Amino acid sequence: TYVPYSPERLPEEQMVRASKRFYASMNQRRSVRFISPEPVPWEVIENVVRTAGTAPSGAHTEPWTFVAVSDPDMKHRIRLIVEEEEEVNYRQRMGAKWVKDLAAFRTNWIKEYLDVAPYLILIFKQTYGILPDNKKRTHYYNEISVSIACGILLAALQNVGLVTVTSTPLNCGPKLRKLLQRPANEKLLLLLPVGYPAKDATVPDLKRKPLHDILLRI
Amino acid sequence: TYVPYSPERLPEEQMVRASKRFYASMNQRRSVRFISPEPVPWEVIENVVRTAGTAPSGAHTEPWTFVAVSDPDMKHRIRLIVEEEEEVNYRQRMGAKWVKDLAAFRTNWIKEYLDVAPYLILIFKQTYGILPDNKKRTHYYNEISVSIACGILLAALQNVGLVTVTSTPLNCGPKLRKLLQRPANEKLLLLLPVGYPAKDATVPDLKRKPLHDILLRI
Ligand SMILES: Cc1cc2nc3c(=O)[nH]c(=O)nc-3n(C[C@H](O)[C@H](O)[C@H](O)COP(=O)(O)O)c2cc1C
Ligand SMILES: Cc1cc2nc3c(=O)[nH]c(=O)nc-3n(C[C@H](O)[C@H](O)[C@H](O)COP(=O)(O)O)c2cc1C
Repeated sequence: TYVPYSPERLPEEQMVRASKRFYASMNQRRSVRFISPEPVPWEVIENVVRTAGTAPSGAHTEPWTFVAVSDPDMKHRIRLIVEEEEEVNYRQRMGAKWVKDLAAFRTNWIKEYLDVAPYLILIFKQTYGILPDNKKRTHYYNEISVSIACGILLAALQNVGLVTVTSTPLNCGPKLRKLLQRPANEKLLLLLPVGYPAKDATVPDLKRKPLHDILLRI
Repeated sequence: TYVPYSPERLPEEQMVRASKRFYASMNQRRSVRFISPEPVPWEVIENVVRTAGTAPSGAHTEPWTFVAVSDPDMKHRIRLIVEEEEEVNYRQRMGAKWVKDLAAFRTNWIKEYLDVAPYLILIFKQTYGILPDNKKRTHYYNEISVSIACGILLAALQNVGLVTVTSTPLNCGPKLRKLLQRPANEKLLLLLPVGYPAKDATVPDLKRKPLHDILLRI
């Protein structure tokens, strides 16, 4: 069944102002790799994940699972898995070009934030669903849908002044899936350490593309 | 070079409140397939695309191009291409299961909103970049990055009270790429008709998963 949809409308001037304000806020977002160990209210984590869960998804499959890890022992096991795989990525698997492309970020396989951040949010995509009769349900565009949800999650974090770094732990998926006892239809897509920025946090001095490089009008 | 990053911090109580408010706003978002022809200020379109452009991207490649189409003739040509391909998708290419999975949405291959919406935003992913020496630049995780940017775009639209439907025009990519004269490294990822909801807009009466189905705490 269909239901009416008539949200409130803003006058044009207010729309323009609101769009500017939101841009200014989101434009402050940076990927932060130095996270403070200070605790973050669990209620905020719940609300930002709730917000991510409002994302659209192919055929309304909502193909996402968010695992928020605060247990120090579990965080450390995650760190050991990620660092082991990342060292292989940097030292041999990915080759000199990949390492060079990442040089500007001064990243390496040491990821202290995996122990330090109060929460690690691991985002799984459900590559298919299970129907009541145990048959598989196709999850159309599950990776795109979960990535869109992650974009909304990032906006929600930015809105409350928390930071993260969007990371894709290369080749760690199967081990982390087993560690967290996720079912076979779930594949790790992203790992987000979440917290306040460390007092002395720094970020690479990057610039963003100007609007005319990303927007065309026809 | 690295620069300090020390954004303003909210007191805990304010964070909780802000996280609730943002959730309440985003939770009002729905995919709307009935869009009003009323014009929308161009400045707002600029600002929401600017906001999308603040998204993180693999190795800061910013692999996105947004094409905002308001020209009626161009919108109509887009409609013809999409409807032609979608009719084949529904009638033969995708099979009975796909059609059944979509039945709840009462969608079909007729997409009036492609003529009616004041703007169609076509989102292209740049599958590789071109370096000054004409060599290809690898765009790591370009589809995930562009989808994250789309999530932030959806948040920005919702924030100003505009609506869209996130759509993936199946098999239309090559024809739309040529129509819009985009280069070979760009592939169409998503098509978003943008505007105010039509006065009599309706949406399917869907429910979202409860939090405990999407969030685990460890
Ligand atoms: C990746 C993706 C592809 C989608 N493709 C289409 C589409 O081609 N046509 C359409 O009408 N809706 C499409 N949708 C919208 C979904 O049907 C919609 O998000 C879902 O039913 C949930 O409804 P809501 O967005 O109102 O919460 C798509 C959504 C996503 C995320
Ligand atoms: C899909 C994706 C994967 C990423 N993977 C990593 C990663 O594994 N490690 C890391 O330190 N940063 C990673 N990043 C963060 C980017 O390096 C960062 O977004 C980019 O440099 C732009 O900086 P900004 O987010 O501060 O604007 C990733 C970002 C995206 C979107």
